[in-house]
Formats: sequence, C-alpha cells, structure tokens
Amino acid sequence: MAKDMTLLWGSGSPPCWRVMIALEEKNLQGYNQKLLSFEKMEHKSKEVMDMNPRGQLPAFKHGNLTLNESYAACLYLESQFKSQGNKLIPDCPTEQATMYQRMFEGLALMQKLADVIYYNWKVPEGERHDSALKRNTEVLAAEVKLWEGYLQKTPGGFLSGKNFSLADVIVYPVIAYLFRFGLCEERYSKLAAYYQSLKDRPSIKATWPPTWKESPGQEALKDL
Amino acid sequence: MAKDMTLLWGSGSPPCWRVMIALEEKNLQGYNQKLLSFEKMEHKSKEVMDMNPRGQLPAFKHGNLTLNESYAACLYLESQFKSQGNKLIPDCPTEQATMYQRMFEGLALMQKLADVIYYNWKVPEGERHDSALKRNTEVLAAEVKLWEGYLQKTPGGFLSGKNFSLADVIVYPVIAYLFRFGLCEERYSKLAAYYQSLKDRPSIKATWPPTWKESPGQEALKDL
Repeated sequence: MAKDMTLLWGSGSPPCWRVMIALEEKNLQGYNQKLLSFEKMEHKSKEVMDMNPRGQLPAFKHGNLTLNESYAACLYLESQFKSQGNKLIPDCPTEQATMYQRMFEGLALMQKLADVIYYNWKVPEGERHDSALKRNTEVLAAEVKLWEGYLQKTPGGFLSGKNFSLADVIVYPVIAYLFRFGLCEERYSKLAAYYQSLKDRPSIKATWPPTWKESPGQEALKDL
Repeated sequence: MAKDMTLLWGSGSPPCWRVMIALEEKNLQGYNQKLLSFEKMEHKSKEVMDMNPRGQLPAFKHGNLTLNESYAACLYLESQFKSQGNKLIPDCPTEQATMYQRMFEGLALMQKLADVIYYNWKVPEGERHDSALKRNTEVLAAEVKLWEGYLQKTPGGFLSGKNFSLADVIVYPVIAYLFRFGLCEERYSKLAAYYQSLKDRPSIKATWPPTWKESPGQEALKDL
C-alpha cells in the first residue's frame, strides 16, 4: 500500500497515465489520488500550483518529496522500489541502451503530436497559419513512421526488446493517444499491433483513461 | 580509454555538451569524436543521418549501441560505469528525488530558452509575430526565476543538494547558455554564482565549447 503517495492527475494525459502505469507495475496501489479536469482548468488551481508551480499535471508526492515530472517519477519509483513488482530497467546492456534511447525519443513523439493536436489551443487565433499546421503535420507523420519502423525491427513485442520496460511505461500512453485521435490502424499496422497487444496488460487496463471509456475517439489524425 | 565510443557533436549545443561532461565524469576519455558545424548544416549530413535519422547532434555510439538522446546517453553511462569515475546518482532518496525532478524540469528550461533564442530560425518569416516572441520571452523569464529560486533554497551549491549529480550534468550547459546569451549576472545572482562556481570543474573546463572561447557572447537575453 502506498498511503504516503499522492497523485493529482487528469484523464488521458500521457504524463499522468505513465506515472499511474509505473505505480501499478511496482505494486504501489492504494495511493491518495484526485482526478482533476483540464476543461475546468483545475490544473491551474491553488491545490495544484502549491505542488507544481508550473500548473501542470501530474502533481506527485512521495512523502514530502516532489516528483511532478513524469519521467522523474518513473525513474525514481523504479530506483526506490527496485525489487518490488516488475523490474522496469533491463540489465542486458543492449536492451538497456535501447530502452533509454526509446524513452527519450518519446519526448520528440509527444512534442510533435502536441504541435498538431493542440495547435489551436496553444496558438492564439491571430497567430495561426495553415502553413504551420501543415508543416507540423508532416513532421508528425515522419516521426510516426520512424516508430512504425522501430516496431518492425524489434524482436519481442516491446519497445526495447523482449521485456516490458520503462520505455513502454513512458511511450505507450503517447501511442494510445495517437490512436485515440484517429491514427489509421491499417496504415500503421505494427504500431496498432503493439497498441492492441498491451491494452489488456493489468497495469494499463487498470489505469485506462476513464474519459476514453465514456466517449468516442476523435478523427484529427485519420489522414496522417 | 573509451576507444569503443564515438561522438559526433556541435560546439555550444547543450545536448552535446552534457554527454561530453558525463563522459569526463565517468573517466571515459579518448573516445572517437568529430566536431561538426551547425552553420554548415553538417548535422544533416549522411554521416549523421546514418547514426541519427532525425539529423540531430549529438550522435553517440557505444560499440554498436546507439544513444543519440543526450538524457539517454547520460543515464546509460552512469548505469554501465557505475563504479568508475564520479557517482552521478545519489543514494539518499531526498537528493535522488530532487535530482530526477530538476533533470526533467531542465527540459522545460531548454524548450523555453529555444523558443526565444531560435525564434527567427525556427519560424518562417511569414509566420512570425512580435506578440508570440514577447509571450515566449515572458514565459522564459518566469522559468528562469523558478531556477533562481531553487538555487536560493538548495543547500550545498549543486542542483540536487550537496553532491554534483546528473542534474548538474544535464542542466549546467543550459544555464551556461543563458549567460552566453546575455542573462544579467546581477539580476540572477544565485544562477550566476552557480554558473561561475562550476566553470573550473575539470569535466566542464575540459569540454567548454571551443567556439565560445573564440568569440564574444550575445546580448539577446540582457533585458530578461
């Protein structure tokens, strides 16, 4: 039981989701948690700002230690609970190198996805340009093709090889997000197979975004 | 000697510099290296693209293992050479949590810095707006003030406490970059003290960007 941990989170946010997956994988259930609404701007509430001055979710604490950055939280949990639950950093140097490399390439995938999906939300109306959104979309398509290629070449079905690792904890929510926003499963068949194969993993199933269960996906990426 | 490692790098790039600092800290000198020019677009050359398909520096290999993402390379080097050179991940849970948290907050600092410094380079002429650059500058100022506050509160002079750690390896080059671009040492006195105090650390001195020694700094951030 993880009664000394507190997580403030938003549904569907990959950074929040990956912390929840890591907690499940390390058998750290029973933490204090509160689901907040991005739509209602609750991530800018005093409660969040007191824990995370950037006004972002997740906001996460272990005792009095703050780990709001999702990568930080995942690495810390694996380090502090190494022998509890599933081992998330492989010992084999080859798998470990691939794991770290894919984990951090995940930042590029997430950034390029955000530059398309959140374009109208992030860019004020008077500063928007069709040419910019078109370019961002092309950049995202090239990035997604890279990942489709990685999964073609990775033996074992996980991002770093034959073991589920922090690379999957970190990047799976981003890949799920792509499909939630309409990425074509036929066109990106390796990514789709990866996405489908992990849907029923206990840590992922237990933390599936509640708002995704209640409403249909979107189509913004259907032509990517 | 690290004859089985190869690094392609560009002068002044924080991602390249941090990998070089990590290599020095782990006593991994003597690696194969090649300094490339961003101005001459050598980061898009076939030599780089073959190692790093995103056409970015650093491009780094250990034997046949690829670790182009700078955070990945630093974490991998610390893991694989744990007992060699300086220990870069503290055991103390408090210091370790702070280290991971600051490491990944460093991504926000770098991104917000890039959104100001590289604005004209990243945004095509017809899509530029003074309002966007002004907003980006305000966002960067708020971010830099956060870090000034962290250093006010951190006992010990390093980002995660009393020991030099991966947080310093990762974030020092970004803070040096701020001052290279004219950040006011009087206005940000804690950041300046941190910047100055690490300049002569052997790993940092040995890897100081060669182009910075040859030419004066810039003034883009002098009013921040």
